[in-house]
Amino acid sequence: MPLTAPLDLEASAIDITRHLCDIESVSSNEAAIADVIEASLSGCSHLEVIRDGDAVIARTNLGRAQRVVIAGHIDTVPLNNNLPTRFETIDGVDYLWGRGTVDMKAGVAVQLKLAAELVAPSVDVTWIWYDHEEVAEFLNGLGRIQRNRPDLMLGDFAILGEPTRSEIEGGCNGNLRIEVRTFGLRAHSARAWVGHNAIHDAAPILGILADYQPLEVEVDGLVYREGLNAVGIAGGVAGNVIPDECVVQVNYRFAPSKSADDAERHLREVFDGFDVTVIDKAEGARPGLTAPVAASFLAAVGGEAKPKYGWTDVARFSALGVPAVNYGPGDPLKAHADDERVELAQITECERGLRAWLLT
Amino acid sequence: MPLTAPLDLEASAIDITRHLCDIESVSSNEAAIADVIEASLSGCSHLEVIRDGDAVIARTNLGRAQRVVIAGHIDTVPLNNNLPTRFETIDGVDYLWGRGTVDMKAGVAVQLKLAAELVAPSVDVTWIWYDHEEVAEFLNGLGRIQRNRPDLMLGDFAILGEPTRSEIEGGCNGNLRIEVRTFGLRAHSARAWVGHNAIHDAAPILGILADYQPLEVEVDGLVYREGLNAVGIAGGVAGNVIPDECVVQVNYRFAPSKSADDAERHLREVFDGFDVTVIDKAEGARPGLTAPVAASFLAAVGGEAKPKYGWTDVARFSALGVPAVNYGPGDPLKAHADDERVELAQITECERGLRAWLLT
Repeated sequence: MPLTAPLDLEASAIDITRHLCDIESVSSNEAAIADVIEASLSGCSHLEVIRDGDAVIARTNLGRAQRVVIAGHIDTVPLNNNLPTRFETIDGVDYLWGRGTVDMKAGVAVQLKLAAELVAPSVDVTWIWYDHEEVAEFLNGLGRIQRNRPDLMLGDFAILGEPTRSEIEGGCNGNLRIEVRTFGLRAHSARAWVGHNAIHDAAPILGILADYQPLEVEVDGLVYREGLNAVGIAGGVAGNVIPDECVVQVNYRFAPSKSADDAERHLREVFDGFDVTVIDKAEGARPGLTAPVAASFLAAVGGEAKPKYGWTDVARFSALGVPAVNYGPGDPLKAHADDERVELAQITECERGLRAWLLT
Repeated sequence: MPLTAPLDLEASAIDITRHLCDIESVSSNEAAIADVIEASLSGCSHLEVIRDGDAVIARTNLGRAQRVVIAGHIDTVPLNNNLPTRFETIDGVDYLWGRGTVDMKAGVAVQLKLAAELVAPSVDVTWIWYDHEEVAEFLNGLGRIQRNRPDLMLGDFAILGEPTRSEIEGGCNGNLRIEVRTFGLRAHSARAWVGHNAIHDAAPILGILADYQPLEVEVDGLVYREGLNAVGIAGGVAGNVIPDECVVQVNYRFAPSKSADDAERHLREVFDGFDVTVIDKAEGARPGLTAPVAASFLAAVGGEAKPKYGWTDVARFSALGVPAVNYGPGDPLKAHADDERVELAQITECERGLRAWLLT
């Protein structure tokens, strides 16, 4: 069967995952996979299907008391000789190997299968499969929907299918990126005393970072681990010139009990006396587990909810007032890895959890 | 008169400087100026003229008891809208403004004028005008002559016309460049505790540099000021990745009483425990003022000799056992500057000093 044919959504979620992964869809190249998804749902009379750029939205309109939004992105980071997919067994564990298997086509496959299968779920469902998650924020497909059609994202609860090993991970840390700069005066390095060395002046900045003790913060019962790290440093003009500027790029991951403004204020205190420029600032999202509908989801999935450390698009739902969690197959440490691979049992488990809840 | 015509070496050294500067000769583009120099000397029957690539060597063979070598480079650093030259008067001081005026065509102009004029100097003179001084060491024209025809560089004393405000500057500091590296482990910055931050580990390297007290070292009566500086720093993979490497490029200018091996040993002690790679290593040169012929030069020029801080090609003469000093018009702080300009009085003074000595 050609990859561009509609999916057989009665196949297993594992086989659907493999089919989706083998349709290469690196960010900005999602048209083909979006076409396949749209075509695959065309026979589902219980779904209203909307196309927005290379995002596909499908929703039930059953007049249920509650609506949940279940979303996943369909793009991947660039390939590195890791397509087409293959099955692997390592130490007795079965995997599907290849780009996109973890981040996050296994989650999308489970969602697509259930979207087609569940003609009468216990809640109304809005399914969203979107483009451009792995690239610059302004391109993000869910961000585009948030700007143009926020009504499509509204509901009592949202689930984002990012990889969580099929366990519930609530909310996400916020993300702040700043540049801390020192300034000097250029001079020939043979006469250094005529100038002033900006790189030497960066010594206390690195000292502060090396000594910083990141907090662990409890929010709605989950403990979020923060982090403050230099992610880049640059300075220097030439091998014989005293440098007049040094820039340290610092990334702060902060607990969702803090606003991004709180986080910025904290960093301005930490780097008091230095030139600080904010270059990226994203709110975190509280765990979203206090809503009654979240409790029934937790009960259906089982296990214990954990905090999500990385920033994810759950924050977009949070910003609209919709409590949201992450829930999807795959080990997040394998996302973007050259040996990206998803454990098959996690695909089946995610499918079981979601189905059980949507049929409650 | 077209710029490519032979020079009028009976003109003033100031006018010859202007003519030489207006022949653009950024490194690797010295053919035209070398042709002009060679042609300008063709009528001088007291000189043996040798062409080597784009270097021109001219020497007397008068059977004098002593031979001195007087050298200067004919290339410049790249232009920055600072050609053609112009005369300027600032606060009553007359200057020639433009690329090459300081570094070092004023010195070359004085040398060319005297080479043509002095048919019977008191010592035999080897004049060397060479290419590629402002670029990578392996391209240096004097280095090429040193490898292929070291006999052309031999003498009892050598003078390099690098800018010294027409005062004698003895020897030069040595120059060592190293890279000091730290290593970490990459991880997503949302889960920093999985990795290890190499930029944070560079904090003590910058601390050592910021705290370092450079020495002042007396060598043969001159005090050399040392310097230890970061001239570059780089680290970082992406805005959301814990960096696994950080490199600090360090430049050590050391007194000529130390060998380059001594200097390397010192830096390996200073950065003990860090990964250190030597990327550039050049011996210094002792002042060269103890030779009897140097004393007569000092007497003719007048004033007091000073140390040269920057590395210059005097070290090549020093390596051949020829004592050597720097002596030329222009403020070294204006070398390579966008507002490069030479004080006219220094051109005249350099001409006077050299002529007086060569006629002693």
